[in-house]
Amino acid sequence: MAFSVLSSSSLLYLPLKPRNFILPIRCSSPQSISTQSKSTQFDLKTYWTTLIAEIDQKLDEAIPVKYPEQIYHAMRYSVLAKGAKRSPPVMCVASCELFGADRLAAFPTACALEMVHAASLIHDDLPCMDDDPSRRGQPSNHTIYGVDMAILAGDALFPLGFRHIVSNTPSNLVPEPRVLRVITEIARAVGSTGMAAGQFLDLEGGPNFVEFAQEKKFGEMGECSAVCGALLAGAEEDEIERLRRYGRAVGVLYQLVDDILEEKSKSKNGGVVEKKKGKSYVEVFGVEKAMEVAEELRAKAKLELDGFEKYGESTLPLYSFVDYAADRGFKIGDSSS
Amino acid sequence: MAFSVLSSSSLLYLPLKPRNFILPIRCSSPQSISTQSKSTQFDLKTYWTTLIAEIDQKLDEAIPVKYPEQIYHAMRYSVLAKGAKRSPPVMCVASCELFGADRLAAFPTACALEMVHAASLIHDDLPCMDDDPSRRGQPSNHTIYGVDMAILAGDALFPLGFRHIVSNTPSNLVPEPRVLRVITEIARAVGSTGMAAGQFLDLEGGPNFVEFAQEKKFGEMGECSAVCGALLAGAEEDEIERLRRYGRAVGVLYQLVDDILEEKSKSKNGGVVEKKKGKSYVEVFGVEKAMEVAEELRAKAKLELDGFEKYGESTLPLYSFVDYAADRGFKIGDSSS
Repeated sequence: MAFSVLSSSSLLYLPLKPRNFILPIRCSSPQSISTQSKSTQFDLKTYWTTLIAEIDQKLDEAIPVKYPEQIYHAMRYSVLAKGAKRSPPVMCVASCELFGADRLAAFPTACALEMVHAASLIHDDLPCMDDDPSRRGQPSNHTIYGVDMAILAGDALFPLGFRHIVSNTPSNLVPEPRVLRVITEIARAVGSTGMAAGQFLDLEGGPNFVEFAQEKKFGEMGECSAVCGALLAGAEEDEIERLRRYGRAVGVLYQLVDDILEEKSKSKNGGVVEKKKGKSYVEVFGVEKAMEVAEELRAKAKLELDGFEKYGESTLPLYSFVDYAADRGFKIGDSSS
Repeated sequence: MAFSVLSSSSLLYLPLKPRNFILPIRCSSPQSISTQSKSTQFDLKTYWTTLIAEIDQKLDEAIPVKYPEQIYHAMRYSVLAKGAKRSPPVMCVASCELFGADRLAAFPTACALEMVHAASLIHDDLPCMDDDPSRRGQPSNHTIYGVDMAILAGDALFPLGFRHIVSNTPSNLVPEPRVLRVITEIARAVGSTGMAAGQFLDLEGGPNFVEFAQEKKFGEMGECSAVCGALLAGAEEDEIERLRRYGRAVGVLYQLVDDILEEKSKSKNGGVVEKKKGKSYVEVFGVEKAMEVAEELRAKAKLELDGFEKYGESTLPLYSFVDYAADRGFKIGDSSS
């Protein structure tokens, strides 16, 4: 049984410290690493480190610089950013491997998820949107390349993602109907039924929109990443739907914790950094309520995974991902951290 | 023989005046209609009128308004614009029908081409790009909905196009591998290898870039539209490549004539309307040179079609499309018009 190998509580602090996976400024503290469960034979640290290194390399290969070079530089700047956490691709690969499928089946889609995710972030950061001059501790794309080029880099990354999937998914591992479903899934997640709607509602702002915006802007990417992995592996429909709910919960949880951390950081520094438009869930409902919701999301995500008990240790990466999303730099429920 | 049915010269003035197909302000003059060839039994006028009405209806159905409504209104505003000429979708359907395939096989892709084309135009019109406050005689998308919403409407239309193809292409008419190739083709045409690169080079401007920009910004859409129709119909590889060259020539020709008409209109009015950045081929090389190139493109496109002689009258719509692209409101070679 997967869950008996590594209990829920022992997963609270996992040794997740691979390159790019945890923001340096929000890195797990040493004591969190020391609480690693001794009971598992599954080496999670190696699993994540290896996987992220492979994804980084494949992303690098996926966007070679061609003429006109500048647009490729702008695309690569955001996709290959050092601070990128690779959450969508790792969730996609981990979901695929849950069902015993070869990760080679998932890599092209994993890379595509990172591309469309980066495209979405580039456009979200624009002055007319969230007006963020920086992203992951680096100047945002338009700060370096200008607003026009940032728009074009995003416009180029979206289709490159789709093309990358079709051109690179190994046909001996993934039948064409599955590839088509993956494309539909990503298109649904990034468009007016997903992230674009989320960004619009985020711009509108206010209590009436914030929950929907969170679901759409952040839940969709998690949902889509988990579902794509399952689709590529040929999972059953009920398993795909289970991972859909898991991925959505983790996606929203991830962002909620980001917002909580930001709010705490602001409080400590006495500074106030207002977004140009819209408000985060934390700004609307407060840290306490957000932490409650985060715990609910953690429980919800794990409950979904419990349904995959028959897959044994293959579930561990997905369990650990929940706690990674929840526990970056502090334990949810401990308001003193 | 297709070409004997309706000779090249008789095609110079075709009765193409269906709704939306010709810009009202650049409509064919009455005398151009009167020169219609009497020799053909193929009713081109009915062909185009019926086809465009079908495309309009399918586009209307393809973008139902959902929550949040405003993003769908913005998407529909540009896609369903009254002045839209539907060139990409009609070329796709005509190419598909060239090979005897059912137009139902092509409609979802035809609609997707119009969606991604509209998305590209919305972004091209933005203040940081070409800064066009109007499009097809109407206020451009950002003029009505704001820059943020215009960016999101474009971001939503690109993936909707891909999703529409996968979800709506009839599987009994088009096998999955063809659908995948269509997706790759469109993704190639709109991305950094195609229109996004063209827009970047257009922003750069100058003689060193203008030809490449024309090819990428306008040729790609024509090429992609023609190729997709052929792919959906299951054409042979050499036929696909022939239509690729045809489509690219027509795409560039179409825009070149647009630019010639604009330049002539400017000269007549004594007005100068400068683009914010970049220059058109006509602005860089002059009307005379542009008209020479336009005639070369017309000849090149028709030469490619001559290779499809065995398909008889099915070639007529594609021949007529070349002349429609070339002869809107004036005859190339007649500088007095």
